[in-house]
This record gives sequence, C-alpha cells and structure tokens, in this order.
Amino acid sequence: MLIVMKHDATPDDVAEVVRVIEEMGFTAHAVASAQRTAIGITGNQTSVDSSRFAYLSGVAETIKVTKPYKLVTLDFHPAKTIVRVGDEPDAPTIGGEELAIIAGPCAVESEAQAFAVADAVKLAGARFYRAGAFKPRSSPYAFQGMGEDGLKILASVRERTNLKIVTEAMNENQVDLVERYGDMIQIGARNMQNFMLLRRAGRSHLPVLLKRGMSATFDELLSAAEYILAEGNEKVVLCERGIRTFTQHTRNTLDLAVVPAVQRVSHLPIIVDASHGTGKAYMVAPLAKAGVAVGADGLMIEVHDHPEQALSDGSQALTIKDFETTMREVRLIHEAVAPIAV
Amino acid sequence: MLIVMKHDATPDDVAEVVRVIEEMGFTAHAVASAQRTAIGITGNQTSVDSSRFAYLSGVAETIKVTKPYKLVTLDFHPAKTIVRVGDEPDAPTIGGEELAIIAGPCAVESEAQAFAVADAVKLAGARFYRAGAFKPRSSPYAFQGMGEDGLKILASVRERTNLKIVTEAMNENQVDLVERYGDMIQIGARNMQNFMLLRRAGRSHLPVLLKRGMSATFDELLSAAEYILAEGNEKVVLCERGIRTFTQHTRNTLDLAVVPAVQRVSHLPIIVDASHGTGKAYMVAPLAKAGVAVGADGLMIEVHDHPEQALSDGSQALTIKDFETTMREVRLIHEAVAPIAV
Amino acid sequence: MLIVMKHDATPDDVAEVVRVIEEMGFTAHAVASAQRTAIGITGNQTSVDSSRFAYLSGVAETIKVTKPYKLVTLDFHPAKTIVRVGDEPDAPTIGGEELAIIAGPCAVESEAQAFAVADAVKLAGARFYRAGAFKPRSSPYAFQGMGEDGLKILASVRERTNLKIVTEAMNENQVDLVERYGDMIQIGARNMQNFMLLRRAGRSHLPVLLKRGMSATFDELLSAAEYILAEGNEKVVLCERGIRTFTQHTRNTLDLAVVPAVQRVSHLPIIVDASHGTGKAYMVAPLAKAGVAVGADGLMIEVHDHPEQALSDGSQALTIKDFETTMREVRLIHEAVAPIAV
Amino acid sequence: MLIVMKHDATPDDVAEVVRVIEEMGFTAHAVASAQRTAIGITGNQTSVDSSRFAYLSGVAETIKVTKPYKLVTLDFHPAKTIVRVGDEPDAPTIGGEELAIIAGPCAVESEAQAFAVADAVKLAGARFYRAGAFKPRSSPYAFQGMGEDGLKILASVRERTNLKIVTEAMNENQVDLVERYGDMIQIGARNMQNFMLLRRAGRSHLPVLLKRGMSATFDELLSAAEYILAEGNEKVVLCERGIRTFTQHTRNTLDLAVVPAVQRVSHLPIIVDASHGTGKAYMVAPLAKAGVAVGADGLMIEVHDHPEQALSDGSQALTIKDFETTMREVRLIHEAVAPIAV
Repeated sequence: MLIVMKHDATPDDVAEVVRVIEEMGFTAHAVASAQRTAIGITGNQTSVDSSRFAYLSGVAETIKVTKPYKLVTLDFHPAKTIVRVGDEPDAPTIGGEELAIIAGPCAVESEAQAFAVADAVKLAGARFYRAGAFKPRSSPYAFQGMGEDGLKILASVRERTNLKIVTEAMNENQVDLVERYGDMIQIGARNMQNFMLLRRAGRSHLPVLLKRGMSATFDELLSAAEYILAEGNEKVVLCERGIRTFTQHTRNTLDLAVVPAVQRVSHLPIIVDASHGTGKAYMVAPLAKAGVAVGADGLMIEVHDHPEQALSDGSQALTIKDFETTMREVRLIHEAVAPIAV
Repeated sequence: MLIVMKHDATPDDVAEVVRVIEEMGFTAHAVASAQRTAIGITGNQTSVDSSRFAYLSGVAETIKVTKPYKLVTLDFHPAKTIVRVGDEPDAPTIGGEELAIIAGPCAVESEAQAFAVADAVKLAGARFYRAGAFKPRSSPYAFQGMGEDGLKILASVRERTNLKIVTEAMNENQVDLVERYGDMIQIGARNMQNFMLLRRAGRSHLPVLLKRGMSATFDELLSAAEYILAEGNEKVVLCERGIRTFTQHTRNTLDLAVVPAVQRVSHLPIIVDASHGTGKAYMVAPLAKAGVAVGADGLMIEVHDHPEQALSDGSQALTIKDFETTMREVRLIHEAVAPIAV
Repeated sequence: MLIVMKHDATPDDVAEVVRVIEEMGFTAHAVASAQRTAIGITGNQTSVDSSRFAYLSGVAETIKVTKPYKLVTLDFHPAKTIVRVGDEPDAPTIGGEELAIIAGPCAVESEAQAFAVADAVKLAGARFYRAGAFKPRSSPYAFQGMGEDGLKILASVRERTNLKIVTEAMNENQVDLVERYGDMIQIGARNMQNFMLLRRAGRSHLPVLLKRGMSATFDELLSAAEYILAEGNEKVVLCERGIRTFTQHTRNTLDLAVVPAVQRVSHLPIIVDASHGTGKAYMVAPLAKAGVAVGADGLMIEVHDHPEQALSDGSQALTIKDFETTMREVRLIHEAVAPIAV
Repeated sequence: MLIVMKHDATPDDVAEVVRVIEEMGFTAHAVASAQRTAIGITGNQTSVDSSRFAYLSGVAETIKVTKPYKLVTLDFHPAKTIVRVGDEPDAPTIGGEELAIIAGPCAVESEAQAFAVADAVKLAGARFYRAGAFKPRSSPYAFQGMGEDGLKILASVRERTNLKIVTEAMNENQVDLVERYGDMIQIGARNMQNFMLLRRAGRSHLPVLLKRGMSATFDELLSAAEYILAEGNEKVVLCERGIRTFTQHTRNTLDLAVVPAVQRVSHLPIIVDASHGTGKAYMVAPLAKAGVAVGADGLMIEVHDHPEQALSDGSQALTIKDFETTMREVRLIHEAVAPIAV
C-alpha cells in the first residue's frame, strides 16, 4: 500500500502515519518530494486495510499495490493449469491444446429435446454438454427449470453420448445434486460473489466453471476463484460472459480483453460464452470466432433444436444447422491461431 | 410486446408472425406504415417471450411493453406500503411519516464495540441497528464476520437498547438464524438475484431489506422484490446503495433518481445507504442529506466508535461525533421536505 | 509515479528502471518488500508519462500519483472562487452565499416564447436565463437552433428582464457571437474535451459554464477546466449533468457525489443540471432538491411555457407552474442547508 | 413511435393522445388490451418527438420505433460501401476484400521518426499511415502535436512511401489543412458529436474515418455518420476504439459486437482500433486478431520505433518487430475468415 499525504501535511502527520504502520507490524518508507510525501508499506503478506489510514490527519489518498489473491496467480503457480473433466485418460480437457466446446440448450426441457441437441452437438465436435436444471431467472413467473428431474435427464445424456455434463448449482444443496449427476459445477454470473456457494464448490471433487459476474472487475473475478482454490479445489475454469455497460445493441458487452489479462497473471484456463455475451443469435458466430482468435481455451454456445420454442433464452440460441457451420468456422480460426501460440 | 418488421418484410412474413401469436393464444394487431409494419400483441397476462419471434423471417426487432412484475406495482396495490418492524404498537416504521434511521457498524466485532455504537446511535435518534454477523467479502482472506456469536451479541443489543436489529443473511440457513436473533432480514447487493434466498425470505415472517445489486436495472430490482412478495411476504423495503459505473472518485455511484422512479410505479418504501453508496466518510453527510431531499423513506449509515480500527469497511464509517452532526443536519432537511410532501 | 516491479524482477531490472528515471532528471526511490519492489519517483513537476516504463523488463504496473492539473486545485488557490456574472456591483454570483438559479427553455424558439419564460422564471427568483441558439443534436434532422437570430432574442431578454444570459457555443466562432450577445459561455457535455473550444473560452473575458462530459472522469473534468484557466480565464463554473451508465429509468445518472468530491480538491464552484441529469420532468424537483442538499452552488433547470410543444427536449422541461413550486421547495432546502454550511 | 397508456388511463386520455397525433399530421392506431392501451403512430418520415406526449394525461411511456438515421442504412442503400482512398485505380480500399491496415505512431514527432515507422509498416504490409499532427490530450500540459509542421512531414511520408495519410482534424479549420496534406480525415472519439466538425467533413472530397465516442450508443454512432452523409460525403468508415466501462484492466473496453451490429443495418465499413481499444501493448495482437475474426474491414494499430520514448500514448504502441509478428498472425486469421465470408 502507498499512502499519499496532502500537500500541506505536517511532519507530525507523517510521523503519525509511520507510527500506525509500525504498530501494525509493518515497515514504513516515507519518500518526500517537493509537492507531497508518499509513504510505502512493506512487510505485509496480503492487502493492507486502508481504513486505518483514511482518518489520520494529512492523508490525501491510499493506493493498493498488493493484490487480494495469491493461489490463482502465476507468481504462486507458474505452470498453466489444464483442467481434466473426468478421470479416464482420454477425458476432455480445458486449458491444453484442444479447444473446449461446451454446447447445449439453456435449459433441459424434456428428454427428447435433451437427446436431440446432445446427439447433434456431439456430431459437430463438442465434448461437453451444458444445460440447466435450475435456472436463475429475473422474474419469478419465468420458467425456473426442471430441477432434479432435469439432472436425471442429463445423466442419461451422459450415458448415451459420453459427453461431459456441465450444469449450474444455485446454492450449496444443489452442489450435492450436481455432484451426483454431473461432471462439472457451473457457478452463474449472478452467483459469482455468493461466497457460501464458492466455498462449497471449493470442497467438491468436481471441476468448477466460474462465470464472471456482470459487473465484476478483474480483481473480483480472480478473488472469487481464490475462494474456491483456498478450500482446496484447483480445478477452476473462468468464463467471460459479457459485462453490463451502457450499450443497448447487445444484451451484454463481451469483454474479450479479459482473456489476455487473465493469462498474464493467472494459471487458470478461461473460456468465452458467446451466447450470453451477446444475447442475439446472429452475433454468436462472429463473437465465437473472435473469442478463439483472442486466445480463449474454449467456447460455451447455446444450441436448441427449436430455438423459437425454447422455454428460456431462445433468442440467443443457435439452431443445430448454424451451430455446425459455426463449429467449422471456429476450427479454422483455432488452426490459424494454434501454430502461433506454440 | 411489439414486433417491428424489417423494411423489406413480405406479407407472408407478417402473416406468419400473426399466425404464431394466435397459436400462442394471444391477439395480433398489425399496423402498416410507409416504412415498416409493426405488430402489437394483446391478451397476454405477463411478459411474452421474444424468442418465439426472433427467428421468424422478416422480424427486425421485438420491444417489450408489459413489465415482468405485478405485486409490487401501484397498479396492483395503490396504497403505499408502510413496513412496521416489530409487533408492538409503537414499533418503528419505514415508509410512513417518520424518517427511518438504520445505523451501526459494518460488522459486529465484539460486545463492547456493539454496545458502544448502539448506545450512541440510539441517543442520536436511530431506531434501527444494523451490523453484520456474516460478511460477504471480495477476498477470502478478509474478516468474514463473527457468525452466530455475532447474532447473539445483536440480540443483547436489542435487549439493552430496544433498537430493532437489521442484519444480513447470505443463504437460506442464515435466514433461520436471523429469524431467531433479529428483527429484519437484510439481503445484500451481491445476493439481489440469489433467487433461492429471495424465496426463503419470502416465506419469513420478518420484514426484508432488499439492497439493489450493483448493476441491477430498475426492472431487475422490482423483479427481485416480486420474488419475495410472490411467496407471501409483503414487508419489503428497497435500498439504493450505489451502482457500478466508470467513475473512480467514489466506490459506487449513488443513483438517487431511482427513488422517485420507484415511487412512481411501486408501493414499496425505499431507503438510501449513504455509506456503501459513496465509500468515503467525508461524502456520507452530503449524500445522506441528498437522499432525504430526494424523498427517501430512510437512511442507512455506518457508524463505528473507532473507524480507523474497524475490521471491515472502516474508511466509509462515520465517527460517533460525525454521526450526531449528520443526524442534526438530516433532520433539518427532513423538516424542509416534509410539509411539501403532505 | 510509482513503478511496481514483478515478483521475479531481477536486480538488473530494478537498476535499469532507476537509470531511466534519473535520465529523465527525476529522483528514484526503490523500496523492496518480501513480495516485490516498488520504485517511487520524485522531482517531477507534473504527471510523468508511464510509457517510458511500460516496455522495461520486470515492470508489472505503473501507478500515477501526481494529478494532471494544478491551477484548479485548492493546493494552488486555497480560497473558494466566487464567479460574478456581469460587472455591476449587484451582479449575481455563483459560488458564494446565494443559490444560483439558471433557468429557461432548452432552445430559443421565438421572441414570444423567450419572453414568456423569462418573465416567469425571473418572477420565481432566477437571476440567470439559459436558452440555446446553437443546439447540439444527435440527429441531423432534429431542430438545430435559431443561430444568431436566437442570440439577438436573448439580448432582448436581457434588456427586458436584466437576467444574465447563459448560452452555448459549439465552436470557436460561436464564442465570438456569445461574447457579443451573452453573459456566460456554456460549453456543453459533448464538447467538454473539445480542446480548441476550451482554449478559446480561456481567452474570453466572459465566465464559462463547463458541463461535465457524459463519460468524463473526475480527473478529466478538472483537466478540462485546467485548459480554460491555463489560458488566463479563472471564471469557471463546473456543472454536473448526469453520466452515462447502464440504467434505463433515467436519461443519465446524476452523480451527486461529484459535488463534495470537487469541493474537496478544487476552488471552482459547481452546480447541478437537474433537467439533463434526469431527462424526465417528474424527477426534476426531487433531484433539484437533492442537488441543493448535497451542497451545490446552484441549479440549472429547463422551463418551457408549453413543454408539450417544445422543439427540443420538451419531455424534461418543467411547466412554469411546476417551476414555481420547485423553487419554493428548493429555497426551503437551501435554508436548511445554509446555517450548517456556515 | 408507440405510446403506452397507464393502467388507469381514461377513454378521454386516449382520445386526446389520438387527437394530438392527428394534429401533427400522422395516423394513430389505438390497440386496447386487458391491461392497458397502446397507440401506434404511422405516417411519420423520421423520428417523432416524444415531448408532445410526455405531458398528456394518462401517458405511461413512449417507445421509439423509427430510427433517427436513414442514409447510412441498408434499407436505403442495400449494397455495402467500399471506400477507395485516393483516385488511382490501384488505390487501397476499405470495405472490400482486402484487409485495411492503418498503422503508424500516435503523433508525428520528427521526420526521422515518421520515416522510420513508415518504412517499417509499409514493409509489413500496411497501405495506410496514421499519425497525429494535432493531438487531443486530457491535460493542457501534455504534448499537443507538431501542428502544420507535422502535416508537412506526413506529406513527405506519402511522397516517399506512397502510403495513404490518415490524420485527425480537431476543428473545421484543421479540415482545410488535412485536405491540403492528407488523404483521409480522422474524426476522433472526443469529437464524434462535434456536429460543426461533422458537417464540415461532410462537405470535404476526402473520405472520413469516424471514431466511435467513448460512450456513444449504436444509434449515436450511426447518427454521427448520418451528419456526414447528409452533407453529401458518402465515403465514411466507422471505427470501434473501445468504450468506457467500469473495468480497470484495460484503458477502454473494446466492443467487438458492434461490428456485426453495424453490418446488419448499415452499408458503411467498420474497422477496429486495437491500440486505443486496449491501451496496453501486450493486448494489441490478441485483440487485433479478434477484430479480424469478428469480421472488421480493417485494423488501426499504433507502432513506434522507440515506444518507450514516445511523446504520447507510448505504452500502447507496438515495437516494429512486434507489429511485424502481429501482421503475420492477423493475415492467417484473415485467410481463415475470408473463404467463409464469401
């Protein structure tokens, strides 16, 4: 932490700040310039709480330098994490050389629908199936998902297709159910700072797909992942799914720059959700290609056999035919990016 | 819902949209202009899902007209709700003539601290005491609250001072505990769309303080409240606590315009959290006054006996002395506003 | 500036950063902690360009400490500026004890309209008249203002009522015209960073009303004002008029916290535009009251004799009757705030 | 326009709205549902001003349907525009099959620097050279550009390399100068709504590069372009350069979804500025690749021979070596995208 003193701070003000720093067990480094004095703090293991200084006389500003997370960083764990979903040797991975494709409908609606979409996305090359059994919906009157019945259908999909099941848990109890029926726990954007849920996921043996909250900063996203790692689960995949901005031409603004930003400081894989990130079917293919070009480790894409009849979020789902086309385009981009990355 | 057709949509395109609307059991009203045709839908009870139309040929845009909430509106319930906290006849209220003052430290830290602050805020005129026993913190390494021990201290505060206890529940289990020890359940900004928690609070006999999420739209805020009312609990108070914007001179941007906006369509009371809404102690008094001037039903203010030693959010807490001054100033504004409101 | 080195930066990396700092003529202060080294810079008069360091090996981050403005600060000019508009001894002021009320229609539409509104706002207590002769409009097909003819009408308004004329200049040439016909140059939100225009206004003898850009940060607002002061014109009044955020219930989000933030570091007066800040007539009164309560030096309010027939922005204009009511309410708040301020 | 009436609007309220619509010369279409009545307007050529209705009794909301622009749309001009820069038959184009690469330093600093960068970017495949002679800078104390001397250097660059010169004009007078020395007028983000400047550019014979304002909506961007086309200049290229959001890991948030959004409704080409869009050199290559993958017609990239000594924005400029690598990567993506686009 750096404490910047006011222009007219007195030597006594500076001395008092130094005294408080030392009382906290840290070391103070005062640097005076013609304009003002700044006091650096060392000796702290994690972030220093700025509250202690805000009320001291002569203090203009406090600037944080130390980050509030550690386990997720390349400083702590220099090798990039590859998350294997499933125990078998040929289980699909996220973060390695293959481009992870997670596809499926927004929600499980029936066995027939779930199977139809699953067969199609598998054929087009996806190795992960995503569909919600519990749906967070803004309105209490919207379809809320099939619940455990939906999870049972997902388990049948897995048996039938060998696709890995990625599905959302909205509270701690639902994590128990996802552990019983699924392969990867999704934590949704609205729950990115549901810390009780993060801790529970951190005690699971399943990998976790952590979606960025719609107004989460970079540090908040990594801090949320840190909650999971701090409980012992290192199999975390981040997911950019669009942030809330002033724009109205998309549902959310896909912040693709977060991909290289994460890769610069963290060892965790990161994928891009091109469906929620845009909210409009016609934008999914171009943004999916952009996501691969920017270097993401995978894509999440909503696919529905009859999007116009979907019980939720149909207007952003691809038809099966469009998904197949998109996959072909995306593979070309991945090949164009791959040799460079190596 | 209004469906706007493209400039070059054919009569067949329009006919197909009309057919789908009628298939859904609604009535279609096509209006053709020189530039384009628009088709209105009537006969729907709640919002119509736009997915059914996004994929039809010739559709340019769908525009929602019906709101996704109902119980929270003045259309449904024309009289303003006054929430009484406690059963006794002279229990304090929110939404009526009195200005509700909810004050206390960010977190319960010890009995001594809790008592010192409680005695002081009572003396200055507060009738509600707020302090967290469970703290949602961005970093897993920050102080997470005293848990049930903290709640027990809060129960002693109530016994000692007769202040009503407002405290946060972060998941469904914690609602049980707040029901045991407290008087009003706070749902925090990060949990505004934790729908499991909203439903649980909707089945409580306690009133609920629902804080606006930091990127929640107006409709999302009212929809979250609708979740609680839909379960049977009508004792809901909304709280503006600042939204996330590009600005850096405050922790959040207090959106005071949401107060008249809510009052125009909803019967629920709304208060302003001037502490989280700014994040800086020197701004709390001016924004608290602004909150009263704009017509809020109450204020939430963080107060600490030693803010520089607070275990969380100290830099936004008022000292006891500053809180007393602020209360005097706020009362003057309330009196200046009150006769006008009548 | 503070330069934070990476965890694994070498002593040579640190030495090179120090060497570059010294080459620039500044002094380097390296502070090593267990985790990383940070290097402070002193001896600089203004902000240091971070580019010089971004490409050096081992640099993780650069953090600016020195602000890019100086003349606008209380450090440089400790007494609050009171801007007198006009030369006569009883000319109205902004920044002193009186609450400056700047009212009038969005645009001059005719002499009859201009006179009708002017007579009414004067009667209700306004001492400034604002109306646009040149209107910045998003669409080229919207009414663009009456131009110089509009300015002539404004000059007649002044002669008739003795109200001071505040009107917008959209480029340097229009400043010449405003100097001829008006009393105060308004620089609009869209032109806050039109640096050519700022410099021209800085060379005017008229005071300047500088509206905050809709996505301007605090530092950008003060830097824009600095452009004007740097050219020699110290008669600058800032104006908060709402920022662009994700919300949809208002046209802009009025950021009232910027008022105490400005007052903490700058000597310049600041007023609140409650009309553009909300965009909806029913919100103007509550937000105007909030603006006074938060401590603003004045208000800008749009008033129209027939808002439903206004050629621009009618939906946010107050009727004359509502303006009179609002003025009475606002005066009560001002009186409630005033004794406290002293 | 659609006018939504309140739940409790009376038949008289509806009749009055209809009367006003007809008085304006338009046709009203009232559609009553169980919940509320909505009234559509037809017969209007451009957007209807909502002010006329906001004050009528019983009106809840007005919803715009007609867009405020026309000349820029595919409805009006169904073929995609290809902008040729220069008159010779082999002059480079933007919007056609070739990927337009516009590269160069932020500012002209000297002939030596301008030549060194120009030779290098030409060798790497760029056909456009961009460098500022007039620099809009937040602080009055930052380097403001070389002015006309800089433009003369740019003219020499053109003579030497045959690269087309793209350079910014900050006011109408500077357009005269760019016409004398350059090939394409850049209008910067801060001036996107400088309507005087847009009109002047609309009367130029040179093509215009219009950068999106940092908080410009989709409709505002197209409306700004409409200003230029309305004056007769159809050679307009749009440029996404990042929007202002709450995020801090980048200087701006590159909104790549605006590319397919523009392509869906407008015939104008659109390019991506990967340098300003990120503000950090290490992100330029990944975001440039994403820009090409999403379907942009070109890229703008800052390149400097010694970025660490640049007089402005050095921390986002690529070194010549990194630019060459980026170009190779970008070409691979363009080839991967191209066959699909056909």
